[in-house]
Amino acid sequence: MKGYFFTFEGIDGCGKSTQLSRTAGALRARGANILVTREPGGPPISEKIREILISPDNSAMFPETECLLYLAARAQHVREVIKPAVERGQIVLCDRFEQATFAYQGYGRGLEVPFLKDINSFAAGGISPDITFIFDIPVELSQERLSRIGKGKDRMESEGAAFFGRVREGYLNAARLSPGKIRLLDGSKGLDELTGEILGIIEARIAGQDAGQYE
Amino acid sequence: MKGYFFTFEGIDGCGKSTQLSRTAGALRARGANILVTREPGGPPISEKIREILISPDNSAMFPETECLLYLAARAQHVREVIKPAVERGQIVLCDRFEQATFAYQGYGRGLEVPFLKDINSFAAGGISPDITFIFDIPVELSQERLSRIGKGKDRMESEGAAFFGRVREGYLNAARLSPGKIRLLDGSKGLDELTGEILGIIEARIAGQDAGQYE
Repeated sequence: MKGYFFTFEGIDGCGKSTQLSRTAGALRARGANILVTREPGGPPISEKIREILISPDNSAMFPETECLLYLAARAQHVREVIKPAVERGQIVLCDRFEQATFAYQGYGRGLEVPFLKDINSFAAGGISPDITFIFDIPVELSQERLSRIGKGKDRMESEGAAFFGRVREGYLNAARLSPGKIRLLDGSKGLDELTGEILGIIEARIAGQDAGQYE
Repeated sequence: MKGYFFTFEGIDGCGKSTQLSRTAGALRARGANILVTREPGGPPISEKIREILISPDNSAMFPETECLLYLAARAQHVREVIKPAVERGQIVLCDRFEQATFAYQGYGRGLEVPFLKDINSFAAGGISPDITFIFDIPVELSQERLSRIGKGKDRMESEGAAFFGRVREGYLNAARLSPGKIRLLDGSKGLDELTGEILGIIEARIAGQDAGQYE
């Protein structure tokens, strides 16, 4: 019995976490065995790494440090939580994963994407999502949604519009390059419509209807 | 004005920290501008990473997580502390550095050393010690010295003799491969004799007497 691994990605404020939660609820209502998790985070060691990554106290952090911390959190998360769950036959829904590394640390921070892919393979131990959903929204909408959060912004969310513009470009390029494994969704659509699209894609994947179609 | 970067390495209990401290004292007494630091650690972000690495609570840590955390701590340490100090003309003495990654995570944990060298280059931003001192002692002496520490052992120090045997082998191989950049010292020698050897090597290096001799 092999489970599935679906990831939810996009710039801050794109609605991915809301959609992940709605998707989990809908799949559970249909009887699926769902595990919800997030990056950076998951198991206790990765949550401790998360604290270092998001704390606004750590504004002196260099891009290389940031990148290696995200990957350390992933290495633990994959081996302690994600792989065992998929092997047990669960459907894992994860808020951010490898595409965030390429978009944020690569396009956003300017680190070399091919090298990030090498270190990511080492960190992720060869596991890769069955399908990645990228929720695309204009940077202005992201900024507007984040400004509603106000003072509670974390270290990453405090970046400016130019940074998120580069990250968005990274996500769009990734989606263009891998249309089978990465599904680009319009994050400005209505909540119900989006959840419906996601459920349709997940159910087709599990039913095997799209197997080989894009891959 | 360019400073120097000397690192002190060896298995736990080898006496490197004692020798580093004695060396710093002797060089300061001769008027040198010394910066003493350690890995994992140094700047605040790296010290927070250190806490995760050494806490015995984190025994569920996988080798890949451990490796990436050490490298994350190094990335910050190099950019925030070591490089600026060397550029200011200071003599930096650091307790552990890249050779610990190759010996502990490579030989000790079984991760691939060539790949570790690639990630280390990324983390260390191209900086490498002028000279690395490796203090070699038999594993039995290491275990005996650690057993005197007793209950206070951290997560790494709690490993067994087989682990430290592989780490020692890693250090010995590194010294064999780079006799110019890495100086192997007998850690079972008397304290004064060892400090004298280290000072002789450092002063020859600074005076330029050994430049090109081994490199």
